Order: sequence, then C-alpha cells, then structure tokens
Amino acid sequence: MAQVLWQNLTAAELRDRAGRGAIVLLPVASTEQHGPHLATGVDDVLCSEVCRRAALKLAGQNAPVVVAPTIGIGLAEHHMAFGGSLTLTLPTYHALLRDLCGSILRAGFSRILIVNGHGGNMSALNALMVELTRELKAPIATTSYWLLADEAFAEILEDQQSVLHACEAETSMMMAVRPDLVDVAELPNALGPQASGAGSVLSPPLHRWRSFQEFAPTGVIGDARRSSADKGERLLEAASSALADQLALGKPWN
Amino acid sequence: MAQVLWQNLTAAELRDRAGRGAIVLLPVASTEQHGPHLATGVDDVLCSEVCRRAALKLAGQNAPVVVAPTIGIGLAEHHMAFGGSLTLTLPTYHALLRDLCGSILRAGFSRILIVNGHGGNMSALNALMVELTRELKAPIATTSYWLLADEAFAEILEDQQSVLHACEAETSMMMAVRPDLVDVAELPNALGPQASGAGSVLSPPLHRWRSFQEFAPTGVIGDARRSSADKGERLLEAASSALADQLALGKPWN
Amino acid sequence: MAQVLWQNLTAAELRDRAGRGAIVLLPVASTEQHGPHLATGVDDVLCSEVCRRAALKLAGQNAPVVVAPTIGIGLAEHHMAFGGSLTLTLPTYHALLRDLCGSILRAGFSRILIVNGHGGNMSALNALMVELTRELKAPIATTSYWLLADEAFAEILEDQQSVLHACEAETSMMMAVRPDLVDVAELPNALGPQASGAGSVLSPPLHRWRSFQEFAPTGVIGDARRSSADKGERLLEAASSALADQLALGKPWN
Amino acid sequence: MAQVLWQNLTAAELRDRAGRGAIVLLPVASTEQHGPHLATGVDDVLCSEVCRRAALKLAGQNAPVVVAPTIGIGLAEHHMAFGGSLTLTLPTYHALLRDLCGSILRAGFSRILIVNGHGGNMSALNALMVELTRELKAPIATTSYWLLADEAFAEILEDQQSVLHACEAETSMMMAVRPDLVDVAELPNALGPQASGAGSVLSPPLHRWRSFQEFAPTGVIGDARRSSADKGERLLEAASSALADQLALGKPWN
Amino acid sequence: MAQVLWQNLTAAELRDRAGRGAIVLLPVASTEQHGPHLATGVDDVLCSEVCRRAALKLAGQNAPVVVAPTIGIGLAEHHMAFGGSLTLTLPTYHALLRDLCGSILRAGFSRILIVNGHGGNMSALNALMVELTRELKAPIATTSYWLLADEAFAEILEDQQSVLHACEAETSMMMAVRPDLVDVAELPNALGPQASGAGSVLSPPLHRWRSFQEFAPTGVIGDARRSSADKGERLLEAASSALADQLALGKPWN
Amino acid sequence: MAQVLWQNLTAAELRDRAGRGAIVLLPVASTEQHGPHLATGVDDVLCSEVCRRAALKLAGQNAPVVVAPTIGIGLAEHHMAFGGSLTLTLPTYHALLRDLCGSILRAGFSRILIVNGHGGNMSALNALMVELTRELKAPIATTSYWLLADEAFAEILEDQQSVLHACEAETSMMMAVRPDLVDVAELPNALGPQASGAGSVLSPPLHRWRSFQEFAPTGVIGDARRSSADKGERLLEAASSALADQLALGKPWN
Repeated sequence: MAQVLWQNLTAAELRDRAGRGAIVLLPVASTEQHGPHLATGVDDVLCSEVCRRAALKLAGQNAPVVVAPTIGIGLAEHHMAFGGSLTLTLPTYHALLRDLCGSILRAGFSRILIVNGHGGNMSALNALMVELTRELKAPIATTSYWLLADEAFAEILEDQQSVLHACEAETSMMMAVRPDLVDVAELPNALGPQASGAGSVLSPPLHRWRSFQEFAPTGVIGDARRSSADKGERLLEAASSALADQLALGKPWN
Repeated sequence: MAQVLWQNLTAAELRDRAGRGAIVLLPVASTEQHGPHLATGVDDVLCSEVCRRAALKLAGQNAPVVVAPTIGIGLAEHHMAFGGSLTLTLPTYHALLRDLCGSILRAGFSRILIVNGHGGNMSALNALMVELTRELKAPIATTSYWLLADEAFAEILEDQQSVLHACEAETSMMMAVRPDLVDVAELPNALGPQASGAGSVLSPPLHRWRSFQEFAPTGVIGDARRSSADKGERLLEAASSALADQLALGKPWN
Repeated sequence: MAQVLWQNLTAAELRDRAGRGAIVLLPVASTEQHGPHLATGVDDVLCSEVCRRAALKLAGQNAPVVVAPTIGIGLAEHHMAFGGSLTLTLPTYHALLRDLCGSILRAGFSRILIVNGHGGNMSALNALMVELTRELKAPIATTSYWLLADEAFAEILEDQQSVLHACEAETSMMMAVRPDLVDVAELPNALGPQASGAGSVLSPPLHRWRSFQEFAPTGVIGDARRSSADKGERLLEAASSALADQLALGKPWN
Repeated sequence: MAQVLWQNLTAAELRDRAGRGAIVLLPVASTEQHGPHLATGVDDVLCSEVCRRAALKLAGQNAPVVVAPTIGIGLAEHHMAFGGSLTLTLPTYHALLRDLCGSILRAGFSRILIVNGHGGNMSALNALMVELTRELKAPIATTSYWLLADEAFAEILEDQQSVLHACEAETSMMMAVRPDLVDVAELPNALGPQASGAGSVLSPPLHRWRSFQEFAPTGVIGDARRSSADKGERLLEAASSALADQLALGKPWN
Repeated sequence: MAQVLWQNLTAAELRDRAGRGAIVLLPVASTEQHGPHLATGVDDVLCSEVCRRAALKLAGQNAPVVVAPTIGIGLAEHHMAFGGSLTLTLPTYHALLRDLCGSILRAGFSRILIVNGHGGNMSALNALMVELTRELKAPIATTSYWLLADEAFAEILEDQQSVLHACEAETSMMMAVRPDLVDVAELPNALGPQASGAGSVLSPPLHRWRSFQEFAPTGVIGDARRSSADKGERLLEAASSALADQLALGKPWN
Repeated sequence: MAQVLWQNLTAAELRDRAGRGAIVLLPVASTEQHGPHLATGVDDVLCSEVCRRAALKLAGQNAPVVVAPTIGIGLAEHHMAFGGSLTLTLPTYHALLRDLCGSILRAGFSRILIVNGHGGNMSALNALMVELTRELKAPIATTSYWLLADEAFAEILEDQQSVLHACEAETSMMMAVRPDLVDVAELPNALGPQASGAGSVLSPPLHRWRSFQEFAPTGVIGDARRSSADKGERLLEAASSALADQLALGKPWN
C-alpha cells in the first residue's frame, strides 16, 4: 500500500512528491479529557486516521499526497479544569502553524490543507487562515473532518446528529481503530447534555467563556452508550471519502 | 434621556456607574468597502446604534449600563483589494481588545460584553474570548448584534434571511439612521451572490482564504434593491430589544 | 459641503481620492478624565473637529484630502487613577498605528499625517515616527493640533498660554462644538495647577513617572473658569487654519 | 503491561497519576532528512521509544510516571536545504515548550523532564531551561537520550563513538523498532564525514552557521553500513536503562 | 577615591550598597556619527563621565550611589545613512531597559535614574518611563544630562545655547576627557545648521521622519570651531553638579 | 598603534574600513558576581581585552578589522541570587543581537564574529546563530575566547584545565590588565568546586536549572589562589593569538 505519511518517507521521496505537486494534509488535533471512558488522545487518533484514509484513497487514484505529522496539541483551555488536558495559547498556536506551513512550503509544496479534528480549534483556524495566507503568501486551506460528511454522519448516528464530544461518534470511531483506548466499563456513564452541535453549547449567540466542566460535568456532550465499532468504521469511511472526493475535484484551490 | 455613552460621561459619572455594577457594552465594528452605494463606515454606525438603543432600553429599566467607545477598525483583510478599507492583524486586534477590556476593568467595571457588528470579526472574537478571559481573569462575553434576533430579521427582510454584506439589511438600517450615507442612485447595482449567511460564503466547510472580490465583485452579498428606512428601523429595534432583553435577564453572566 | 471623512465615503470615492494623491489626516486622541466639568471624550471631539475643519479648508482649495477615523483611545496611564479612563500600552499603540497606516498605504495613499490631540501621546508619537517610517517605508508625519497655532492660542486665552488639560482652552472649544458635554455647574471647581505647558508638569527635566492625580487632584491643569464658546471657536479656527496652511504649502513632505 | 503514554490514559487516570507525584517525560524530537536510507521521522520514533522503555522500567518498580505526547517538530534549519524537513524558529519553540510545560503543571504534575532526541535542539534546550524555569517557577529538567549511556554506546557501536546523524546508531535502532522505515538498498550510500560527535561538526569552537548539506551532502554523519537490529536493541536498552536508573535515584531533582 | 562603578565593585560590595538604599544611575547613550572630527563613541564617553562625576560628588557627601554599566547603543536611526552608526529598534530598547532595570531591582536597589546622553533617546525614554513603571512596579526616573544645567551651559558656550550635535558643547567636553578622540585638523569643517536645540531641528511641531543627513550633511548641528577643553571641563562640572544637587535633595523621588 | 575600537573611530574612518572589507569582532560578556575577590565586570574586561589584542595583531598584518562596542550584559540568571548581577532574558538578548548585527551590516560590513566571554551565553549563542543568520541573511559567526586556545590554557594553568569562573584563569588575566579590580586579601577564599569545565557543572547530561549558589556558594568554580599576572598575560596572549591566527586564515568564512 502506498506510503502517505511524511514522517515515514525519506527526504528524497518527499522532494519527489513535492515535484509532482502533491497536496499536503496537515492534521491538527488536541490532547484533552474525553469523558470517563476515552483516552485523552482521541482527537489525534481520529484526525490522523481520517487524513490517512483520505490520502490513501487519493493515492489510489494516483493523486500525489502527503500527510504531515499531526499537531497533537491544540486549543483546549475549556477542558483544563478536568486535568489530563494540554493547551496552547492562541499566539503560540499561530506561531506553530506559521512555522510548520512555512516549512512545508520551503520543502517545495504549494497546497496545504489543515484538517482539524477538534471543535475548540475551529474559530481560531478560521481567524488564522487570514493571517497565514497573508504572512506566507500561499493559499492555506482548512476544514474540520466531520463537516464535509454531515449528512452521512446524521444517518449513521442514532442518538446524535453530528460529532459532539466523547460522544456516540467519537466513541464509535475509537472502537473501530483503537478499541484498547475505550473503557467499555465506563460506557454507562458516558453521557452529557445533548446538542445539535458542540459549538451551540460552547459558543451560543450570546456567550461568555465557560469551562466545559460548568455545563458538562461528565466531560461528555452527547450520549456514547450506543456506540459501536461498526458505526465508527462507517463514520471514518464517510469522512475520509468526502474529503478525498473534494480534493480529487481540485477543491478548494480551483 | 439618559446618557449612556462612555465618552459623553465625566469621570465622576463613570465611577458612579461602576460602583453601581453597570454592564459595559463594547461595540466593535470595521471600516471597509460596502458596495457601490454605502459609505465605508456602515458597521460602525450600525453597531454603535444597536448598542446605544439597547443601553437606553436598559437604562429605562434602571439597569446601570455604559456603551464604551466603538472600535471602528476590525479584521477586514478580505475587503482590502477594493480599496477604501482598513484592517488590523489578529495579534494587534488581540492586544487592542486586551488593553481596552483591561482598562474597563481597572475603571471598576466587572461585566464587559463585546458587541460585534462585522462578520469578519466573529471567528476571531470567539477565539479571543478564551485568551482575554484567561489573561484578564474576568468573564468577558461576546455576541454579534444580528444573532439574537435572527427570527425577527428573517421576518422583516424580503430578499434575505439574515444580515449579509451591504445588503437589504444593512442598507435598510443605514436608511433609517444615516440616509445621507446611502447613495440611492447606486441601488440598482447593489446586489451580489445570495447566501443563507455571510459565513457560508466566506467560510464554507472546506475553504481557503479568498478575497471578497473573488466571489462578490460588486462588494455586495445579498440584494439591497428593496431596502427601506422602515425595514431598517424595525431591524434596529429587533436587534436592540433582543439584546436588552437578554441582558435584563442577567445573561450571559448568570 | 465637501465630504472629507473616510467613513462617510464609499470605497469608490476613496479609490478616486487616493488616485488624486490625497493627504490623509489620521486624528489620534484619548478617552480619559477631564476634570469635574468635562466628558471623557474631549480629546476625541476636539482633535476630530480640528481635522475636519482643516480638511474642509483644504478641500475648499481643491486639495484632495481625507480624514481617517479617529483613534479615540491613546496613552493615558497617568489618568487611570481617576477612573473613567482608557489606555493602551506602548506596544499595542505601536501595533495599532502600524496596521492602520499600513492599511491607508495599501488603499493607495502615500502621505499620512497623524494629528494628535492628547499631550500624553506626544513623546510616543515622536518615538514611533522612526519605527513606522522604517517599517512601512513611507514618510509618516505627525503634529499636535495646538503646536502650529501657539501664538494665536496665547493671544486668545486669558488665563493660560497654551492647551493644558480640561482647561480654559479645552473647555472653550468644547463649548463651541459640544456644549452638551460641558457641565457649567462644575466650572467653579475646574481649576488646578498652572503651567507653561502640560509637558512641564508631566515631564520636567528630571522626573519619575507620576499619576496625574498626584499633582492635580481636580483632574485639571490650568483654569477653566473663564472659558467661553467664542474663545473656543477662535481656537478651533486658529488651529485648523494653521494646519491647513502648512499642508497647502506642501509641508512637511516637501 | 502498564500504560505510560499520556494520550492513552483517561483524564481520571492522569489526575490520579498527578496525585501520586508522577514524573512526566516530555520527548522532543525533529522531522527532517535522515540520509538516503531513513525516513524523516527517525528522531520522533527513537526518542519516543527510549522514553516509553524508560517509563515502563520505572512503572515496573512502582514509580509513577507518564510520557507526554512527543513534540515531533524541532529546530532543523540546517536540514532545510535537503527538502523533506520541518523546522520551528527559536521563539516559536520557546512558546511551544512554555505552553506545554505550563499545561502539564496545571494538570497537577510538578516534575517535568524534557527528553531530547535531536542534536539540533540541544543548545536551545539548554538556553530555554533558564527561561522556562523562571517563567513557570518550576524545576524543568532536560537531557538528550544518548548522553547518559555514552560509555555503553561507545562499546556497542563499531564505527562510531556516539550518536551522529542517520548513522550506525540511529539506523540500528530503527532496524530494531521500525525496520519498515529503513531502506536497506540504500545502506551502501549511507555514510558521510566521521566525527567524535555531531556537535563537533555543527558547532566547532569557531563557527558560522552552515547548512548540513555543506559538509555532509549525503545527509549522513558517520557510517551506517554495519548497522543491525541487534545493535539497535542494545542501544535502546542502554539509553532507557540509564535514564530510568537516574530517575529512580531521584535525579535531577534531589 | 570612592569606587562608584557597578562593574568595578564586587557582588558583596553591591549587596552592601543596596542594603544602604543607594541610588543607581543608569547612563544610556548611543554610538553614532559625530561629524568629521569626533569619534562615534562621544555620547557614551560624556554620559558616563557626567554620571561618574555626579556619583563621586554624592559619595563625597556619604550618599550611597552606584553607576550601572552604560548602555552604549541607543536609538540612532536618523544617523544610519552616515555609516559608522548603530541603532536599536524601539521594542528592543524597551526590552533592554526592562530587563536591566528589573535586574537592578532584583539586586536590592529601589531607586533607578536613567541618565540619558543622546537627544535621539529622549522621546522614547519619556514614553518608556510609563511602561517601565507599570511593568516593574517601581518609580523609574529619567533625565538628560544637559537639561538640569541649561543656564550654566548657555553661559559657558559662546556659539550655542545648549548641547546640539558634535557641536561646541560635545567637542569641548571631549577635549576635556578624551582629547585623543578629537581630530582637531577637522575642526574647521565641524559646523552645521544652528538651532536653539537639537529637538527643534529633528522634531519641529509638524514633521515627518528625516535622516540627519538631509538637514545636516556634515553630521554637525551647531558650530564646534571654538571648542576648548576648558569650556568642556566647566560644562561637565556644571552638568554633574546640577545632577548631584538634585539627587542630594532627594529628587525626583520625594 | 592602530585604532581598532569602533567607538574610537569617526564615521568616515568606519566607512573606509567597511569599504576595505573589515571583519567586525563583537565582544559579548556579562556583568555578574565573580567570587569574593573580583569585580562584577570581569567578563567585560577580559573579553574586550582579548578582542582588542586580536584586532591589533590583525591590524599589524594589514588586515582591516574593527572591534564593536562590547555588550556588557548577558545571560546570568544563575548568578542573580548573589546580588550584584545583571541579566537579560533570552528574547531580549536575541533582539539586541539582531539589532546590533543588523546595524553593523547596514554600516557596510559583511563579516561579523561574535566573540563571547561568558560561559552562560554559550548555548544561547549557538542557538541564536541559526536565527540571526536566517533573519539577517548574513553569515554571523561565533566563538568563546578560551575555546581556540584550550591546549595553551591547560599548559599555563596549574590548578585547572580551562576557564572556569572567578578562577585561576580569570583572576590571573584580571591581575594582568586590571589589578585594581582584584582584591588579593580575599584570594584565600577564592575557591570552589573543581570541574573539567564550567559547563560540566552547570549543564551536566541530565540537569534541571540550578542557581550557581546552590553548587558553588563562594561564587567560584575552580581555585584562584595561585593566580598571577604573569599567567594572565600568557593566557591573554594565547587566546588573542589563536583568534587572530584563525581569522588571518580566513576562518570561519572560507
């Protein structure tokens, strides 16, 4: 099977791929509490997996592509009160993305898509696209992995509409790829407030900053009790297919 | 009528209001192209007006309130290609909000609501709430003036659902408060792509940064041709009432 | 009458003015305590008014000119102890001026004059001219509105030589343009230490930083008791005429 | 076997470990060219592996320990000319380490050891220890994984004394843990200048900054031709044992 | 004679002096072109000398005092076009003064007077006093060495009123203390525009930034032709006496 | 004798030297505790002296050279607990070196060698070379004055191998050039832990940051009791000759 991970390629292979105009997917995630039943590395595992699958699909169509090393730490101030969580400040996150995207450009690539796997990064990524594009003079792009497959996600999930937090969606996908990081004994406790989307809880139209713990003491938004590996597999396929399809069409650069 | 504008109050009056626990509304806007028919100061005019009206409604209920001086410059990189537009970088915007909110806190106030009047500021404000709250150790809050009255806006408008850009909503409100800044002769040209919201055009699920000019060469999203002062007056009342009502209920701090 | 305010012009009008080589006046002020009798927005009102008048005089001579939106917040740490005052730190002020002047240059203008209306900004503006000129590679200029008309000011004023703080000069000018923001009942208390200039009190040859409150507990330097709208009108005309005259001669860029 | 990786633990498990006074190992590496025969992710793989092994040894002695997520990007400006390499600037690296160590402290841990796996990070880490300790008021410590086992390394290696770059040591260790990332067909080309240590080539007593390519065009310092998985296994055991032994003795905090 | 220079004292002696409440004079100068006849180090030599003399006078009265190492580089952008000149940017200057004053405070001293010897530093020092006082929470003070003795200077000088640049005053003082750094053969060329003060040339009421070379191509403001060591000696005594006298009176901290 | 110090040359002389391709030596030192017997300015005195001697040797061979003003303050956090010490933070040090080297380049020079005289600066200088070279696009070089003459130093010294701190080497050199700054009465107390090099005490393979006071309460590493001016003279000649010889060979730029 094709090798798509930057860190698994030699410099010569990466030079070659840059020379062929490869797209670079840069997964960005977070390391933070994920309820009583999931390891803190969920966002890293899932975002990396979606990117890997999307890249393999593209590679299978002979589209040159590389997946850069996942940035496993993101913006998770709202989870800090739970312990076990890591966060960057916004200026650090900006600097980190600038240096990384700048390095990728210097390595000869020209199309970078930051693929996000953590709700708490979304606003910042939207705001930082402007800065990065101006600073680096390159068309940096972004998405969050569940956004392109929202209809498929709504169909697959039984108790939710979309990805929430430590929820039916995340738990199912973890069961599919890293079942060792799901503590099924804790599943009965793996539920919290329901919501149409994590954003509607964290950033309603009028809001002050609030700790996640204030509105979701279990560390969960949604209901993970009916999670399954099968759902997870279908979710991962839906997300990675949707992403690969868009990229195969030349989006978002054409 | 009660005086609610910070800059129109003496220091003694402001000390008194701080002592009574007043809420501070901090309007943040932008100075940027607004199509062929509107002056560049639209966001400043409208956001200031909504805050003024909301504050007067609260003052009429004996709720202590102050409207801080409007920050008339925001994040408008996507409008720069049109000329006539001013923008800050994200780090400058962060520093400016930190210093201003910090000053308001030092003046004895403890509840600050940043009321936004420019779509391009929204993601940044969401991201900066986290930083400001941690840096200043105070519950800074935010909203965008059209978000709380979305149903009323949808009802009043004929050709749109919500506020877009230099559109039926903005043009109507300008006709109501500053008709001298609306060039009605240009109204026939005041239309551009339609959208469910400005964000869906500027930040679709998968996007690279794009200049506004690339997808809306007229500088307009929406259709301003059927704008009217009457619609504008109703929109301003809807927005300011919705805001005042929420604040009167103690939101978003309770 | 000619429209000279940036925020009241459309993008097309501003592009046109840039194409004609217009000078941009950028008023910078402060929002801070102004004694017992004046609103905190005095510097913003007066600096904006001097710029507006000067620009109209130039426009009347067919000289293209624009007045950018006033920066209403400046460096007022020395007033913070009074409450009701807002201040920026020097690095924020630097960043703000850099971004704003940079935007004006990107909008096609090449001559920017920062017109200052607050004593506490003067040293910083002198120091920042160096930085801005090097950073932006453009001949940014500065003045404080009372400096060019010092002889006329000395003649018009009865109890002072120049602009001090919340004094005969500022109070008179406010009476001329915003009498609603002067509390005449407080005029008998509107006096403080006399000085040849505000700088001689705040920055004597050997000085440590001191709060304004330490040497002027009323918040006034000078004596506002014999202020009048007539004096104010003459002061505003003297300042704006002196500025317009210098600019009409091509200064300070020739 | 004990779980020692932060990202594989739940928040509750991490809170528990913090409460028991666990040491946190923070592996820091680099993603950069590693000669014709090795993938760019070598430093990440090896540094993570040494930390994992050391932590398991400690856990086996009932010493509480956690391995934080590896920072896979470091300071690799000298490798950029080869392509396939990623680098941060020093201020970004400083900010990243400050935020990460700060997060670990906020999560309740008090002893952090940054375990380095990339020669190019060493000077910066020495310099940054001072800053981080002062900024975070916590005794941040550092080592590079090969330093504590230098005698054992010298004994195991046949053609080198210590870890160089893409060399006998690194290639052997990769053969032990990720043989899929070693291209044995390229081994005959996997040699470059010999040196007593990588530092003596990169930072001789009198030096200007030089690209790695200038003195080692193959991307290798040392000679990888006689690498073997067996040597690699012994090197990894020597490094991780030496680290675990020191930590078991309470160093470097006692 | 008493030892007053920080760098010539042992740590124990400095701890003792801090314990006795010593004032610290921090000389700040510049290294920059000084006309055809003077070395570039003039400001450093003279400012250090005035501080040394003032400190010895105070020490002679048993007032504890220390002169910190002179900061020999300042803000000299306006001299850069001549070559031979060194300059800092304002943010660097700010950081340098903050770290140095912070160190002096940590060494146990509480009263710091920054004694300036370069006209180009004056505005920045005025602006930075505000920042340093707030950041360090300590009453940092400043003066420029010629300001306190302006009447004496006017009397001693024949062709000038005050210190200009590479002028009668500076040349005379250099003749008194470092005659080896005065090229008397060039004295006939050592003249430039006259002015009441250097500031009136560099920062007139309405000004854009200008290179010194633009208005003083010889690198001189004033007229150095009638300089003499005797005048220089008197100037140095006047300046240092005036400074010592003010400090002996407890100014500017009482 | 040739004049080699920047601050003792006129701008015209410096322009001339730049035109002839002169090397610029930039001495960087520290002001910090140096045991009971030495003044705090030791590193400045010695580093300046080595550079001066090396430059005179080069000038004697008609090689154009200039010694820039010594940066007398460096990175000395580990000495702060003793009092009498000054330190910069790493970001300030970076900014200072960037501005200074940038100024030297703007003055027409192209080869800059930072000559270090303080152990605590070494790691930072190694790390900053990368940044400065990239930022300034110029081949900035560095050395520490004792590194090039290590064999000669080992031979001259009786109780040490190399330069430690306030030790036989530093004390002897001070006796040679500034005997007035050596308190011989304190020599019997001038000893501390022995070490092969200062780095091995301050930065062993596994270390946390520690105050110098923690492992060397006397403020000395090494043994200064058998110091002598004769040894000092030989050390200074060895160091400056070694440096001049390397530079005469075109190193490190060829």
